[in-house]
Amino acid sequence: MPRLLILSRDHAVYHNLIAATDPPGLTIFATQDPQEAVDNTADAEIVFGEPSLVSQVLTQLPRLRWCQCTWAGVEPLLRPGMRRDYLLTNVRNVYGPQMSEYVFGYLLAIERGILPRWQAQQRQQWNESIPGRLTGKLLGLLGVGSIGVHLASTARHFGMRVRGFTRHSESCPDVEQYFHGSALPEFARGLDYLVCVLPGTSATRHLVSASLLSALPAHAWLVNIGRGSAIDEAALVAALNAGQLGGAVLDVFQQEPLPSDHPLWRTPNTYITAHVAARNHPPDIAALFIENYPRFLRGDPLLKQVDFELGY
Amino acid sequence: MPRLLILSRDHAVYHNLIAATDPPGLTIFATQDPQEAVDNTADAEIVFGEPSLVSQVLTQLPRLRWCQCTWAGVEPLLRPGMRRDYLLTNVRNVYGPQMSEYVFGYLLAIERGILPRWQAQQRQQWNESIPGRLTGKLLGLLGVGSIGVHLASTARHFGMRVRGFTRHSESCPDVEQYFHGSALPEFARGLDYLVCVLPGTSATRHLVSASLLSALPAHAWLVNIGRGSAIDEAALVAALNAGQLGGAVLDVFQQEPLPSDHPLWRTPNTYITAHVAARNHPPDIAALFIENYPRFLRGDPLLKQVDFELGY
Repeated sequence: MPRLLILSRDHAVYHNLIAATDPPGLTIFATQDPQEAVDNTADAEIVFGEPSLVSQVLTQLPRLRWCQCTWAGVEPLLRPGMRRDYLLTNVRNVYGPQMSEYVFGYLLAIERGILPRWQAQQRQQWNESIPGRLTGKLLGLLGVGSIGVHLASTARHFGMRVRGFTRHSESCPDVEQYFHGSALPEFARGLDYLVCVLPGTSATRHLVSASLLSALPAHAWLVNIGRGSAIDEAALVAALNAGQLGGAVLDVFQQEPLPSDHPLWRTPNTYITAHVAARNHPPDIAALFIENYPRFLRGDPLLKQVDFELGY
Repeated sequence: MPRLLILSRDHAVYHNLIAATDPPGLTIFATQDPQEAVDNTADAEIVFGEPSLVSQVLTQLPRLRWCQCTWAGVEPLLRPGMRRDYLLTNVRNVYGPQMSEYVFGYLLAIERGILPRWQAQQRQQWNESIPGRLTGKLLGLLGVGSIGVHLASTARHFGMRVRGFTRHSESCPDVEQYFHGSALPEFARGLDYLVCVLPGTSATRHLVSASLLSALPAHAWLVNIGRGSAIDEAALVAALNAGQLGGAVLDVFQQEPLPSDHPLWRTPNTYITAHVAARNHPPDIAALFIENYPRFLRGDPLLKQVDFELGY
């Protein structure tokens, strides 16, 4: 009779959602407190929870065989020296629509001049300046996973052209041109918008460097909805201050919350949001666990399994 | 040998675009000055131009048989007592993508809180408040012509549900539910967004009345990209000041430019733009004339012909 530990700030919601489906043979203990988890259910074979909480109990669950994370980013479980003797699954494919609303909300706000027009309105100024359009512009996706695929489809809906930079894959039909490896500067050249959807791994650290930023046109905007570590923030601040870039829309940072004395707060042409581009919708996450559980019982491959080496 | 009068502020651009295709048998005179037009080419059979300029020479072109307007709105040519003894064509189907960028730019800005988040940013405030989403929300289209059809497809891309209010037609597959005639209050009930795409005709005047506004939920936003006359502005100002409506995004007004002492400038939760939602792209308009010209010569029905009675 497998024991499930739910370790999450939303443990009550998840407990209800999962228990309601009456998973065969499963007993559940739910908490948001790592110590309480270890005290009560150290024999858990399955953990469902937030990576930052799960990482605190990982060494104290000798029977752990599977961990279903409630987030896409599982960095806390991938640190050097941590155990990797269990199946790790995360959440993917659920963030595309929300990320698309975030990215295209800001892209359209930039093209249409929503902020400067609102500022003119405060002065009762009839501002007939000609707005820009997304149609015909060139979007570059740094990373084309499930989120990138959704962004590409929205970009095509708005008549944009789409480039993708990936490790190997070239499977998204809405991406017209793919680049890999050392072709990063060629990928950047001529882009109107560069959207970074990269996970936080050692391979992606500071991929958006001073050199990459200098390959972008001076009117280009950078959007980061991946992980803060993918961007060399000092180089970005320097490029924005020097007017070498149109602007930046940043939802993730090397340190979160962004420290109040961080130079990005006062950098021109920068929109800062507080890691709110996409949030978890518990029924979607619970549904993934409910779908994976019978697979786990049968020993079948699990959906959304994370490769410990790749980090996603 | 038919004579073409081009009467437009963009006459030079249109002259080049049309002459470049060498339309058989056509001689062209181009100007932006109505008096110069009459002095030089009173025998024109065809006029291509802006309705507000063309209306000034209409009585002085005895041989006029066809007028191709460069805009969708042809109100200046529809005033009572004006001649209707010629074929009138306008521009349609070219504004959908631009209108979609305008409407969804503002809808996403509202959901994502782009303005309040930018204001928080000015105070170095890490604002983790939960954004809204378009997915699952209900959009009502007041008017489902070529622009409405495009808006409906974008709404569906973002996972919205779509209602349409039309005179009779029910032909757009992205509209899930249609309403007509006296069902206007039922149409409005439960909408998250009401987007007005109505032309300015006697039938649409003040269709957005105090009564219609009161049928909308208190959180609903009104967007007007049609004509200002479709909205009772005094009723709208009153509803917004009383908090009976979430807000309004207005690109068109009963009087344009909006007078500097107009109460709308100081009405809460209102975005005002200066009739900039869509602008003409001359190559598209010229292409329409070039496609219509051989039809005119053959006596075939013209594309985008305006019904003088309906006004569109």
